[in-house]
Amino acid sequence: MQSELTPGEVVLVGGGPGDPDLLTVAGLRAIRQADVIVHDRLGANAALVEARQGVELINVGKIPRGAFTPQEVTNDLLIDRARQGLRVVRLKGGDSFVFGRGGEEWLACVAAGVAVRVIPGVTSAVSVPALAGIPVTHRGISQGFTVVSGHVPPGDPRTSIDWASLARSGTTLVILMGVHNLDPIAQCLMGAGMATDTPTAIVADGSTDQQQRLSSTLGEVAGLAAAENVRPPAIVVIGKVAGFDLE
Amino acid sequence: MQSELTPGEVVLVGGGPGDPDLLTVAGLRAIRQADVIVHDRLGANAALVEARQGVELINVGKIPRGAFTPQEVTNDLLIDRARQGLRVVRLKGGDSFVFGRGGEEWLACVAAGVAVRVIPGVTSAVSVPALAGIPVTHRGISQGFTVVSGHVPPGDPRTSIDWASLARSGTTLVILMGVHNLDPIAQCLMGAGMATDTPTAIVADGSTDQQQRLSSTLGEVAGLAAAENVRPPAIVVIGKVAGFDLE
Repeated sequence: MQSELTPGEVVLVGGGPGDPDLLTVAGLRAIRQADVIVHDRLGANAALVEARQGVELINVGKIPRGAFTPQEVTNDLLIDRARQGLRVVRLKGGDSFVFGRGGEEWLACVAAGVAVRVIPGVTSAVSVPALAGIPVTHRGISQGFTVVSGHVPPGDPRTSIDWASLARSGTTLVILMGVHNLDPIAQCLMGAGMATDTPTAIVADGSTDQQQRLSSTLGEVAGLAAAENVRPPAIVVIGKVAGFDLE
Repeated sequence: MQSELTPGEVVLVGGGPGDPDLLTVAGLRAIRQADVIVHDRLGANAALVEARQGVELINVGKIPRGAFTPQEVTNDLLIDRARQGLRVVRLKGGDSFVFGRGGEEWLACVAAGVAVRVIPGVTSAVSVPALAGIPVTHRGISQGFTVVSGHVPPGDPRTSIDWASLARSGTTLVILMGVHNLDPIAQCLMGAGMATDTPTAIVADGSTDQQQRLSSTLGEVAGLAAAENVRPPAIVVIGKVAGFDLE
């Protein structure tokens, strides 16, 4: 992997689930070299202390259901700084292409004639369950997993996901951004035949000191999440492996 | 994340897709501290040059359809070296819990009373498509992705995957270890209603200097793979995003 940032280039860096030790070697090197770092509210922001003196840090973090920077503004920022000949890092939580809108930023750069490349990161979809003792695959138990966004509920016209098919897929389900829609998601999956007692876990604040795991079943998880007042960021894992607690 | 290895402890390190720059900071640190490193044929083996002088390197790599080290032998090795009070790293390609049998190794250590923990890695399932220009999710196009092992074909009594449901799930499909079964997989998906012209890409030797991408359709990909004599390791991506070529 190219080890030096090029002036005028945008590099999309996947920052991992939050713990700065889960940044990649290439990602950390990019943070240390950057002239400008455009980052979010969540992610490997603890690693920003590694940046150069005089670096420009821009927080475009989107607060769920609150104020946020429109994607177009973020795109324009990246392009503007690159056109100034600066070395630009776009630091995302997890991986840029797992609900990170990295593809949109990439296409915007290309359309503007700005060079862009990607440094993949440790996706929260796999690592957060792992750090909470849940393997998303396990021999003889799960030969696959599905990662979906739960930010719109099943059946919503904005979703392209067929949740009933997922219920029958035989894969472990890993749901990101799904805490607010946990009840309709669980109802839909059970309506499609998934057993009420399917092991289901929620991992909140994964990979941070505040990491919390709740273990439940598909039938009871929505009630538990409400009772415990679980808030984002949280990842929901549904399937036999969610009954694991490796420790 | 705990930064020092403990004597007598086994650490399962996800090594990423192959490029040593895609190791995590924590993973590289573990490699540098280890007394024993148990590794595979594939993965971040280029990073082994970072290991201490005098380190014991053990290759338990499984060659597809060839000689391999039984999993029990690997488990026993980890336990034996840990019981000698050594600092043991189990280095896997990608992430230990994405078809890495990390869960089995974890459980074996626990059963033997050996301390074990995990350092998640960059999974090939997301990063190899990314490095070939394919985002596994993309706003308005794909709100989820499914990662499955293709090492046994659809309908095989050994599979727990319902491939017909996957065809209808609306998620991007990412198939690992599926090159040998590409024809029955594609036939099954098309039989379940997936369009013959669904964009389909194969990325062979991802993240290495030999990386090769083939772009095709679901109807033609098996023939193309045969004609081009594609060999493992290769990852197959099926869905609209497989038509992307970010560059």
